[in-house]
Amino acid sequence: MNKEYEAVISSETAKINAFLGSCAQLESSGGSPWETVLEAEKYALSAGGKRIRPLLAVEFYKLFSGADSAPDFVYEAAVTLEMTHTFSLIHDDMPEMDDDDLRRGKPATHVKFGTATGLLAGDGLAILPYEILADMALGGRLDPLTAVKLTKLLSANAGNCGMIAGQMLDLWSEERADAVNGEFLREMSGLKTGCLLTASCLFGAVLAGADDERCRSAEIYAKKVGLAFQIVDDVLDVTSSPEELGKPTGSDSDREKPTFYDILGEEGALREAERLSAEAASELEKYPGSGLLREFALSLAKRKK
Amino acid sequence: MNKEYEAVISSETAKINAFLGSCAQLESSGGSPWETVLEAEKYALSAGGKRIRPLLAVEFYKLFSGADSAPDFVYEAAVTLEMTHTFSLIHDDMPEMDDDDLRRGKPATHVKFGTATGLLAGDGLAILPYEILADMALGGRLDPLTAVKLTKLLSANAGNCGMIAGQMLDLWSEERADAVNGEFLREMSGLKTGCLLTASCLFGAVLAGADDERCRSAEIYAKKVGLAFQIVDDVLDVTSSPEELGKPTGSDSDREKPTFYDILGEEGALREAERLSAEAASELEKYPGSGLLREFALSLAKRKK
Repeated sequence: MNKEYEAVISSETAKINAFLGSCAQLESSGGSPWETVLEAEKYALSAGGKRIRPLLAVEFYKLFSGADSAPDFVYEAAVTLEMTHTFSLIHDDMPEMDDDDLRRGKPATHVKFGTATGLLAGDGLAILPYEILADMALGGRLDPLTAVKLTKLLSANAGNCGMIAGQMLDLWSEERADAVNGEFLREMSGLKTGCLLTASCLFGAVLAGADDERCRSAEIYAKKVGLAFQIVDDVLDVTSSPEELGKPTGSDSDREKPTFYDILGEEGALREAERLSAEAASELEKYPGSGLLREFALSLAKRKK
Repeated sequence: MNKEYEAVISSETAKINAFLGSCAQLESSGGSPWETVLEAEKYALSAGGKRIRPLLAVEFYKLFSGADSAPDFVYEAAVTLEMTHTFSLIHDDMPEMDDDDLRRGKPATHVKFGTATGLLAGDGLAILPYEILADMALGGRLDPLTAVKLTKLLSANAGNCGMIAGQMLDLWSEERADAVNGEFLREMSGLKTGCLLTASCLFGAVLAGADDERCRSAEIYAKKVGLAFQIVDDVLDVTSSPEELGKPTGSDSDREKPTFYDILGEEGALREAERLSAEAASELEKYPGSGLLREFALSLAKRKK
């Protein structure tokens, strides 16, 4: 990726981290023992990560509004996507799910704070986004209809028929290796990863007041990027060391759960990721100023962690 | 309670159950294995219970709107309170929390469907209410600002600083029996039970467009009723059999966690519950047509299950 885009991404990521770190609804008053749950949530949120979801929301806002920079309300709304992602990671790492002790090189939230607090911290971060969006509307920082649209986007894509459905398919596939083929993996990944990325891109589009055609482009881009991302993830899970990746590798293969790596092979998987990334990029060609988002898609297929 | 009120409560409860049972967002198409999570959620929702939260929403709507019956949109919004309550029960019964195998006389959701699906079913029911409220606004059944107000009420009272804070205090108290006194139990119960009951009464008030004074009365009523309810719950946990209660009894005392029963004694606890119920009832005296809600509060102190 060219240096200019890298600098923009780095500066936007810093701004997203600042908004995440200063979320008023997560401030402790320090007065009561229940506030450990806030510490656990802030621990999980501050464990790093690429902030891809809020970044996509901010960049799609800029693309479709034509503005060089996004106003504060865009960041305030965008961090709810990272909270939703983090809630799913906390619960996903728990013993009844993937049972991973490490996340981004640090103890998982349920390991650091205990499983009960981990469960509740995930619950808290699952619900907080809706309070933030409502607070924005009640505080005059978002008109109520836009808040409702974002609430729908987030809840529908994170909930039963979105991310949760993807988690269910993942569980289901654990003991049914025979039934897992490319089509199944595409469906699972589309739900588990693609839905929240779709919500992310559409957050930016809706906040910019984009028309249906632009929203459709954001959705197509998100779905292709999401699938490319998952395919590369599966490859890195086999070919990287835990140190490079910051989380345990080989966890999927330990449980004999087939992934894109198993079904397409390393070369085939990377070729497929490149094809999807290129299609995602080309979907945005018609929009002036889409260079960063196009390069971002292309870079995903080449990422090393 | 007089027969007329009993008949109203019974008919409203049936209507609430019908709305819960026909929730469009929980319909399975039967096509994919992920839909087990919908089955788990419907199982948990249909396990019975008194539907107190949606009932309070409906009755406060009727009280403050002056209408004899509530329109459909009130029930559609009110069932989100039961979903939120049910999500908390599913997670509360899990091994890392209270580790209860029975709920309302039937296997707990995580026992029936496995802990991973139980976890995800709780997550699904935690998020679904916000999708329903957004769908109502987008479908023209609720104006967007009212949807935002209900979203705020529910998320703030179910989230970190509400129900979840109460769960955290409950966990915290497990190993600190010495620190548990009446004041602590009031705070814990206010958060764990009182917050969602407050949201319930205010749902009805907001849907009826009630003024600040009426909202304040709904809140006072809810907090007193919530505390009375919890105190009686603690007494019944010791004095009832599992058959009478439909769930394991003595679970609190097994873990040496002091309750209102331990701190106030049976007689003192029941006297306190009666006092709170009477205060809740008297708060509504100034509103014509509040007979049912006043009798409902008084009946809570006398309930046997």
